[in-house]
Amino acid sequence: MNLDFIQKQAKSANTKMVMLVLDGLGGLPSGPNGQTELEAAHTPNLDALVRDGIAGLHLPVGAGITPGSGPGHLGLFGFDPTRYQVGRGVLAALGVEFDLQPGDVAARGNFCSLDEDGLVTDRRAGRISTERNEELCKLLEGIELDGAEVFIRTVKEHRLLFVLRGEGLNAEIADTDPQALGVKPLDVVAKTKAAEKTARLVAEFIEKAKERLAGHHPANMLLMRGFAQKPTWPTFREAYGLRACAIASYPMYRGVAKLVGMDTLHAPTTLEDKFALAAEKWDDYDFFFIHKKDVDSRGEDGDFAAKVAAIENADQAIPALMKLNPDVVVVTGDHSTPAQLAEHSWHPVPVLLHSKYCRTDEVETFGERACIRGALGPRLPGIELMPLMLANALRLAKFGA
Amino acid sequence: MNLDFIQKQAKSANTKMVMLVLDGLGGLPSGPNGQTELEAAHTPNLDALVRDGIAGLHLPVGAGITPGSGPGHLGLFGFDPTRYQVGRGVLAALGVEFDLQPGDVAARGNFCSLDEDGLVTDRRAGRISTERNEELCKLLEGIELDGAEVFIRTVKEHRLLFVLRGEGLNAEIADTDPQALGVKPLDVVAKTKAAEKTARLVAEFIEKAKERLAGHHPANMLLMRGFAQKPTWPTFREAYGLRACAIASYPMYRGVAKLVGMDTLHAPTTLEDKFALAAEKWDDYDFFFIHKKDVDSRGEDGDFAAKVAAIENADQAIPALMKLNPDVVVVTGDHSTPAQLAEHSWHPVPVLLHSKYCRTDEVETFGERACIRGALGPRLPGIELMPLMLANALRLAKFGA
Repeated sequence: MNLDFIQKQAKSANTKMVMLVLDGLGGLPSGPNGQTELEAAHTPNLDALVRDGIAGLHLPVGAGITPGSGPGHLGLFGFDPTRYQVGRGVLAALGVEFDLQPGDVAARGNFCSLDEDGLVTDRRAGRISTERNEELCKLLEGIELDGAEVFIRTVKEHRLLFVLRGEGLNAEIADTDPQALGVKPLDVVAKTKAAEKTARLVAEFIEKAKERLAGHHPANMLLMRGFAQKPTWPTFREAYGLRACAIASYPMYRGVAKLVGMDTLHAPTTLEDKFALAAEKWDDYDFFFIHKKDVDSRGEDGDFAAKVAAIENADQAIPALMKLNPDVVVVTGDHSTPAQLAEHSWHPVPVLLHSKYCRTDEVETFGERACIRGALGPRLPGIELMPLMLANALRLAKFGA
Repeated sequence: MNLDFIQKQAKSANTKMVMLVLDGLGGLPSGPNGQTELEAAHTPNLDALVRDGIAGLHLPVGAGITPGSGPGHLGLFGFDPTRYQVGRGVLAALGVEFDLQPGDVAARGNFCSLDEDGLVTDRRAGRISTERNEELCKLLEGIELDGAEVFIRTVKEHRLLFVLRGEGLNAEIADTDPQALGVKPLDVVAKTKAAEKTARLVAEFIEKAKERLAGHHPANMLLMRGFAQKPTWPTFREAYGLRACAIASYPMYRGVAKLVGMDTLHAPTTLEDKFALAAEKWDDYDFFFIHKKDVDSRGEDGDFAAKVAAIENADQAIPALMKLNPDVVVVTGDHSTPAQLAEHSWHPVPVLLHSKYCRTDEVETFGERACIRGALGPRLPGIELMPLMLANALRLAKFGA
């Protein structure tokens, strides 16, 4: 069911829903006893939820596809990530919590190194330090253009955010990053007539930036890619009739939540404190998206034991969540991050759904292989989780007479 | 696979197929031993079919979607219910077995109450009795329009069917029901130029009806909604090459079957008698849709034990069905109606398929949780049942060389 269809069926109810995302939850059986991280973790509280609820594994994007954090979360939120795509420039803005306005054009920039002939010798400027990046960004912030305002923000190491604000801007501009060494940066090219003005402004900016950076090898030039504008998507309120909030500490996840119209609360670090914040705001919202990052981080570190510990840490906070007496709870991840791979992966992600209208299945522990036998099946499309949550919250009307 | 694709693959064979629909079959584990209605029921004959056949659970419309009876059955018949939608006016006509002709415009009407200022005070006219409705409909039947014939039929309580028959009619007309109190009924508005003539006729009818109903408070006015024309869909014969009949007692299900070109036989009440009728007509048809209503009715009553009894009653009739030696049998529901909810629900529906070409699975009893492990999986799209039945009846040609 696509979002337009669900939108027509949404109805209101006095029910509360919590989506707890343990980032990168899914793993691979590379542990001591041939177990995955989740299987190895001692999770009595999550297991109790599974016994009362239903379980399965969801596919965030599709078979074999490894999701980035943006698509992973958009799928959980019911927005088909292959249709609702965010440009890299917008993601960069979300990542530093830059308050992108409708009409702004954002791009992801890299400091890079040019040789005397103007050929790219390092697309990442020797990965300069973030401090050095900040100094160089100060140099660039003074650049003035005729007809648009420029914003520059340090992201990390060689990475920066470039934003143009003004009338009639358009993001249909090709990347200037040649994605190769020994060639010149690409010219700024408008892909459509409507983007020509913007392309001229970007070209003017890059020219001036090149002058200012001239003496600063290895960071003596800029490459840009992923020109994009903030998308105009339905909000959670428009799509589902839900007052929704995000309780997430990392800018990226707060940003994705903002794109779908969630309020972003200033989130504390621990899961207990996040649940306490949810308790405080319980009457103000119908839907709580609560995010825990370190499960993914430890997976990316390739540290099996540390990922197990992060999962066990989440499990210990579950009683605080259930004390809120939510009508519907989903616990899952936005993708898998097996310690074995030390990066995001394509593997389906364990998911449990708990409500009083569950047709409980035989799954008794929350783990990848146990979930295969669950009522949600081993390959549930991730975008079906929101309709299922809404149904269990009695927030979807009957279709047809 | 959509219907167009299946249609191209359909081929003839000398095989007989039976689809037995136990309306509202799926339930929730609210019974004495934590069982669902179907799990609690003693169903030795259905269990025997499951042991020889394959099982699973199907999703009539999609994840989280609660189907009405129309969409639920259309899905079983292989017609994607999100694509093949029936207007409320047509459903009202089906419900009273009005013989809607191509070109007729039908609407669902409500008697309602207006105060002295012409404002709606009760959209259902105090739910007048069906007898009173019949008297009032007689008043309205005499209304004559210039250029179209009018048909009025009592549905139940405050509900009636309005049908306009004539040349060049069009159903693109907005509802006159304001869906609110304290406001006037909405004017009759044509949504397209092609519907203007029809809108004038409807407005003229409503004006005359208002005059005739003037002294009959609380039913002193009419509201109309769901203007619609009979759809022109492929028939079972066109889509599948099947001579199909419906053996169903309730007008609604007979009506939906008619929409897809089935003959509707005058059906007896008990399942044994329905199977006897099928036996009588065995040579005349290839496909028998046989419908049992009370499983749903008892679920809607919220009566767990009575729903169990209705399922057991169906089970007892199964030997009579199998004596006919059908090549393919499917037993399922059009949606779930858990006694716990006392209404239709979004939960997947147990299904079994029996033929001599089944790759039997490990499921040994017909129940929601047992079916999760079946060969059809826990979330089979409902529209895939018809292609599976056709295949098992050796009625689908090889695709490609």
